[in-house]
Amino acid sequence: MTTEAGLTTITAMGKTAQAAARSLGRSPTEARNKALIRLAYFLEQDREELLEANAEDYEEADAEGTTDAFLDRMLLTPGRLDAMAKDVRNIAELADPLGETIESRVLPNGLSLEKKRVPLGVIASIYESRPNVTIDIAALCLKSGNACILRGGKETVRSNVELVKLIHRGLSEAGLDPKSVQYIDNPDRSLVDQLLQMKDYVSLLVPRGGPALINSVAEKATMPVVTGGVGVCHTYVDESADTGMASEIIFNAKVQRPTVCNALDTVLVHAEAAPRCLPPVAVRLAEAGVELRCDQRALAILGPEPLGSVVPAREEDWGQEYLSLTAAVRVVDSLEDALEHIEIYGSGHSDAIVTEDPAAAERFLAEVDSCTVYVNASTRFTDGGQFGFGAEVGISTQKFHARGPMGLRELTSYKWLARGTGQVRE
Amino acid sequence: MTTEAGLTTITAMGKTAQAAARSLGRSPTEARNKALIRLAYFLEQDREELLEANAEDYEEADAEGTTDAFLDRMLLTPGRLDAMAKDVRNIAELADPLGETIESRVLPNGLSLEKKRVPLGVIASIYESRPNVTIDIAALCLKSGNACILRGGKETVRSNVELVKLIHRGLSEAGLDPKSVQYIDNPDRSLVDQLLQMKDYVSLLVPRGGPALINSVAEKATMPVVTGGVGVCHTYVDESADTGMASEIIFNAKVQRPTVCNALDTVLVHAEAAPRCLPPVAVRLAEAGVELRCDQRALAILGPEPLGSVVPAREEDWGQEYLSLTAAVRVVDSLEDALEHIEIYGSGHSDAIVTEDPAAAERFLAEVDSCTVYVNASTRFTDGGQFGFGAEVGISTQKFHARGPMGLRELTSYKWLARGTGQVRE
Repeated sequence: MTTEAGLTTITAMGKTAQAAARSLGRSPTEARNKALIRLAYFLEQDREELLEANAEDYEEADAEGTTDAFLDRMLLTPGRLDAMAKDVRNIAELADPLGETIESRVLPNGLSLEKKRVPLGVIASIYESRPNVTIDIAALCLKSGNACILRGGKETVRSNVELVKLIHRGLSEAGLDPKSVQYIDNPDRSLVDQLLQMKDYVSLLVPRGGPALINSVAEKATMPVVTGGVGVCHTYVDESADTGMASEIIFNAKVQRPTVCNALDTVLVHAEAAPRCLPPVAVRLAEAGVELRCDQRALAILGPEPLGSVVPAREEDWGQEYLSLTAAVRVVDSLEDALEHIEIYGSGHSDAIVTEDPAAAERFLAEVDSCTVYVNASTRFTDGGQFGFGAEVGISTQKFHARGPMGLRELTSYKWLARGTGQVRE
Repeated sequence: MTTEAGLTTITAMGKTAQAAARSLGRSPTEARNKALIRLAYFLEQDREELLEANAEDYEEADAEGTTDAFLDRMLLTPGRLDAMAKDVRNIAELADPLGETIESRVLPNGLSLEKKRVPLGVIASIYESRPNVTIDIAALCLKSGNACILRGGKETVRSNVELVKLIHRGLSEAGLDPKSVQYIDNPDRSLVDQLLQMKDYVSLLVPRGGPALINSVAEKATMPVVTGGVGVCHTYVDESADTGMASEIIFNAKVQRPTVCNALDTVLVHAEAAPRCLPPVAVRLAEAGVELRCDQRALAILGPEPLGSVVPAREEDWGQEYLSLTAAVRVVDSLEDALEHIEIYGSGHSDAIVTEDPAAAERFLAEVDSCTVYVNASTRFTDGGQFGFGAEVGISTQKFHARGPMGLRELTSYKWLARGTGQVRE
């Protein structure tokens, strides 16, 4: 019974979203921005019920013995809400991606062609228990003229329902259809399966969470899915690398925020550079509490009695995404061997070379098949905010549609407008 | 046994294609062009074995009682090969899409970002028994640096094998890997199912053929598929339309080549324009042998005893893709009603308005959600060649990745190159 009623609900949501998308996609820039600015205001000034709902979610999860890390992710505080409001205001301030003329041409017969940016339509997102994702995705969709259907983790349903109320108030005050943002608050998991079948209503599915969630969604979804988020990131220290620069870049890529997808996982070091580069890097990382899983050649360089944080690597360390203070280290004989290692073990996310040799740099840029390839910089820059997109829905490691950080433009499509004066085809 | 051996073959093909794609994607423009120019030469000058193979295919299909239309599609003649050679030369002359800098920016910290166009990787195509598709897809993939795996209809396997030999000779003479283009000549259908599972090797799947083939491929494929090809095309004659222009455009869109996806299917006429526009249009179409399936209001206008080619429409005529000398006709009360009709019955391909009213034109352009929307022109222009793309792999009616005619650029992705001087994230 629940399921059948649920199915009807989900289909109805799809239809409602499509209608809302049509109207949102044609709404003035100012109205979409106003909805965002009002939402930011509510997050800062009208958040008592939201904080209460979040406290209830939190207490219930805590009582059920949820881990501290999980509890931390679901917690909303006044400070976190202020930060969310700031992000929403930033999105409001970004240029409107809609209506942009991407290119235009006039055919020899006088027919004028204009390739114009339009929204994708309806975007659905399935995510875990971080309520800030509700605001993130809704704000980016709203700005880019896409309606959205959201489904967050069941542990945060009260928080999300309150957040969506604020979104709806923002939309209403801006004269926009509140149904532009819909939330699936029914905990029935079969609704998610149903949502994944709705390719006739949903243009794009954005899963946000761990690899298990993303893979399961990508497997079952009938519509395009933004896959990504898994980053096995390499930094290769070339023969000619500057030792100090290599050490700075490796330290930053590993230590600055180890839990994210663009953090370093494997250090590859050219055999000629290893004796001078590895020891200082190892000491610095060890001081920061990083465990280094080293191949035999790296172990030999780091001395017969290496630091306690240096251990032998096992085969499974190559291609591992650690998301923690751990890194694998391998000595290679050439740039070619480094490229081959990255090709075999990389995930197409972010990889870097540290080198003073322009030819090595250009070869690395050309041959590493990842969404972002770096010369002499930390892989930590693969991020919509850092790239100047203002915000991101995620980082795509696929080649279709969009690759790398996905901002507002990456949530759009285009259509061709042809203006004629009676042209017919010969 | 066959199947197991087949699976191994297909996986091996995928791996081979990936390796070939890496090398093709980095090959010089001149080498790719040379391969195409040599192929064009072989199609013109070295085609005896090809014509013999095609004759065998043809005789076998004929003996099996294949329809004349089918036989015609599979036939290669010297004239048709000359035309194919010309198309291949045209592709050789197009600008290289690879290596183009799509955009670039320097971050405040001095990190230089370049968004550079790269190939998708491996493209697979499944098509019916038109051997020219083998050359079409292979030439477009080759030019855009993508390896391809092809599978044509079983009736033309001899022809396709000979065509692929010419492609391989062209590749070899240009110093490129002949494995850049592979053909599945084993008729075992389970190989196709296996190919559709190979998302780890194949970046994009291009089905070419009727809706049954396209839908079945889209249903089963695990990788992105270019869907499209179904065009339910409307031409709306607005209240203010010029009668002569409306008649020219409708005639051209319906009659110039009725068997293709951008040909007209439904005429919508504003009630105010119908009395003056419908009769001349009906006469002209009738003379060309077009059957008009009309709603009651159109029938009433076309007189108590309409032409023999005017018949009452049935519900299933709305939204029907005829691909023949048939059109549906409906009288509507407003632009709004026309928009609603197109929204319900259209396929998002090509739709046109004939109007002298700029406001009506702009509203139509803004609100019709199709890949190409026309004002005062025939829908027959939705075509890569007409758009100046030089060639096309197909017409996408989806919004993801590419919409409308897909040429060389639409077979590419991009990657971000980041060149630094030691930048790390704060």
